Amino acid sequence: MSQKINTDALKNLSREELIEKLQNYQQQIAGFRVAQRKTNTLFYIMRNLSQELELDSLLKLVMDEVKDILQADRCTVFLLDDEKDELWSKVGHGLENFEIRFPKSKGIAGYVATTGEVLKIDDCYNSPYFNPEIDRKTGYRTRNMLTVPMRNKKMEVIGVFQVLNKRSGIFTDEDVRMLEAIAPIAAVQLENAQLYVDLRHTFESFILTLSKIVDARDPLTAGHSYRIMLYGDIIAKKAGWSRKKREELKTAALLHDLGKIGIRDNVLTKTTRLTAEEYEHVKSHVSFTRSFLEQIYFSREYKQVARIAAAHHERLDGAGYPDGLKGDEIPPGGRILAIADIFDALTSKRHYRDRMALQKVIHILIDGAGKIFDAEFVGYFMQISLLKLVRILEHNSPQKLPEEELKILAHHTLSDLKKSSLENHAWTKVFFKYYLREYQEK
Amino acid sequence: MSQKINTDALKNLSREELIEKLQNYQQQIAGFRVAQRKTNTLFYIMRNLSQELELDSLLKLVMDEVKDILQADRCTVFLLDDEKDELWSKVGHGLENFEIRFPKSKGIAGYVATTGEVLKIDDCYNSPYFNPEIDRKTGYRTRNMLTVPMRNKKMEVIGVFQVLNKRSGIFTDEDVRMLEAIAPIAAVQLENAQLYVDLRHTFESFILTLSKIVDARDPLTAGHSYRIMLYGDIIAKKAGWSRKKREELKTAALLHDLGKIGIRDNVLTKTTRLTAEEYEHVKSHVSFTRSFLEQIYFSREYKQVARIAAAHHERLDGAGYPDGLKGDEIPPGGRILAIADIFDALTSKRHYRDRMALQKVIHILIDGAGKIFDAEFVGYFMQISLLKLVRILEHNSPQKLPEEELKILAHHTLSDLKKSSLENHAWTKVFFKYYLREYQEK
Repeated sequence: MSQKINTDALKNLSREELIEKLQNYQQQIAGFRVAQRKTNTLFYIMRNLSQELELDSLLKLVMDEVKDILQADRCTVFLLDDEKDELWSKVGHGLENFEIRFPKSKGIAGYVATTGEVLKIDDCYNSPYFNPEIDRKTGYRTRNMLTVPMRNKKMEVIGVFQVLNKRSGIFTDEDVRMLEAIAPIAAVQLENAQLYVDLRHTFESFILTLSKIVDARDPLTAGHSYRIMLYGDIIAKKAGWSRKKREELKTAALLHDLGKIGIRDNVLTKTTRLTAEEYEHVKSHVSFTRSFLEQIYFSREYKQVARIAAAHHERLDGAGYPDGLKGDEIPPGGRILAIADIFDALTSKRHYRDRMALQKVIHILIDGAGKIFDAEFVGYFMQISLLKLVRILEHNSPQKLPEEELKILAHHTLSDLKKSSLENHAWTKVFFKYYLREYQEK
Repeated sequence: MSQKINTDALKNLSREELIEKLQNYQQQIAGFRVAQRKTNTLFYIMRNLSQELELDSLLKLVMDEVKDILQADRCTVFLLDDEKDELWSKVGHGLENFEIRFPKSKGIAGYVATTGEVLKIDDCYNSPYFNPEIDRKTGYRTRNMLTVPMRNKKMEVIGVFQVLNKRSGIFTDEDVRMLEAIAPIAAVQLENAQLYVDLRHTFESFILTLSKIVDARDPLTAGHSYRIMLYGDIIAKKAGWSRKKREELKTAALLHDLGKIGIRDNVLTKTTRLTAEEYEHVKSHVSFTRSFLEQIYFSREYKQVARIAAAHHERLDGAGYPDGLKGDEIPPGGRILAIADIFDALTSKRHYRDRMALQKVIHILIDGAGKIFDAEFVGYFMQISLLKLVRILEHNSPQKLPEEELKILAHHTLSDLKKSSLENHAWTKVFFKYYLREYQEK
């Protein structure tokens, strides 16, 4: 209907008027095209960002997208830590694997975070804002940069975007507008990811602290669950487990002795031999751990936590407890924890015995492989580097480890300690002489 | 430049050709307008959804937005619970405050979730798919409906959208396309919210279970922390605290006695009078709770948990412990917990005494108001309805409460029990005679 009216209206126009109208339409269409391209870009970036709830991955994604869209060489997102009034960034281009952190009052990023202003610098080395110190340290040459504040829905600045070195020329006003449009989208997603990571951090620190307290009811088991977690994770990594499966295992490891809350303290710290009744009471901690963990709501990815934790005293031959499971009936995570648990128990002092010589412990594991312990997982555990092992064994020690001297241990594994006549090697000297005297075969 | 070329090209066109081109452009512009409107709608909905990480609020938001955009009377989102193979919905239009749940194999939503097909029904009462049973129950008249599957980024169906009764006419093909475009956007946000809610659920069930276990080390304090949490929340609600502040208080309430893990069990369950040394040992649980909680990473909104939990034995006059804080030095949450804690302790059996008569407990609180306890919070606590009180006091009781008879208690508060000559009231008969005989003044 409206189409018809327009057609009629056109008939009364002169040729010049028609051409003018046509040019007008062409401009409109060009405008629509530009707007559509921009909207599509924003839509695309919003959709991509919304699919990532892990903060680190999200930061990387944001920076990659912005770098591409603005045709820049580098992009960094600095987030505001408003408890400490600091800006920080972890995974920016050119700073893989380390975290940058500085006061909110410092630098260009700090200026933008504080004032909320956009700062476009077309020639860094001729700008009073620019501090060439960082380039001098990194060897990077910053030509131009664009820094834009990131605000959340309450309009609070939560961080800044910093884009370096437009691939050709300098950043345009259109680049500024684009980055200003992207900033609030990224802000929302980053706040969500922060909430999620904060909650996970709370939960993880909670179970870690709890495990430490439970272990510390007996001073001799202090740090036990934490070490089990580290040993277990080393095995799982070597076995190629996914991050999620390893998280589940680590949770089970930290909580495997939680049931000790229910064990009488006089039995827990008894220095003489336990009576049969007392031994049964101690053994009941596993069932107690299970019933505790079964009351907890775990999401799908953590559903096996109770089962794994409850299986750390099972044996391949069915002679373990509490269920006397055999072979494959024991969940893989439980078979890993059984190895980690016995290793840590034997290499720790107990009320009724001293730390066991490390070579003897190795023989117990290898003798038990296929009978008591899962042979494959024992194999992986034997591949643990002695450097890692020393760090775990000594992590509670007040003495600082001389890292320089330890380096040599990175090239040797637990397996290497099986061999006889170790005395002549430089690495065994480091291993035994300085840090682990008490583990030495007597 | 391109503009110039076009202008030159136009000069060679005839009038008819110019008009044809103009009409062509008009159509293009109309197409751009429609596309832009759709993109804007999707952009708008994506931005709105991305700002909500709370599952319930997000579901409500999704349904409100879709209802408006599709000009429908109702919209419901059913989510797939793939552990149970059920569909569920909690806050759909027309089902405020209760959860619908049914097998994935049932109904139109189930059909769409199972097959992944879109189902558009223009006349429900003449459709073999439609089950008029629900209308019969709810009194609603469904004329037409549109049901669309919701897929996540892995293309798995995670739920369905169901829209009822287009405001005028029936749902169009354009409506179908719009809902199909909205579905994956909503799916991503719902999955994020689900992850977050799952993790919170895990954390909450963890601290709840832990608090129960700590309390249960002494059978007589079983359920103590849980009741403190309920009492404390009632006071905070009446004081108008925000949801977040209440969550922090509830966390502190559940964890306030965590330090009892560090108390020797023979002291904890001693039936005779404690020695001075033993009493000091018991008192140390508060400092232990604090040092435990201080090791935990809490996000900004939970930063006061340790301080609040550690203040539950402080007194307004400074005679409390562990810090002997006075008046406003005690955090408000701590002042609330002090009231909740003493109330629950006195109304519970102890090794060395029976439950205290409720009227005596009330007098202790009122006498202490302004000296030991915060007078304002005592005032709020006195306003607790007796119905709520009975439910909390008896929540561990194996006997089922006869709800019908209890109703009368909803209209009376703890404060009403202060009055003398209560014997003649119907509600005091219910309160004392059936459920709380032991609280009666002897």
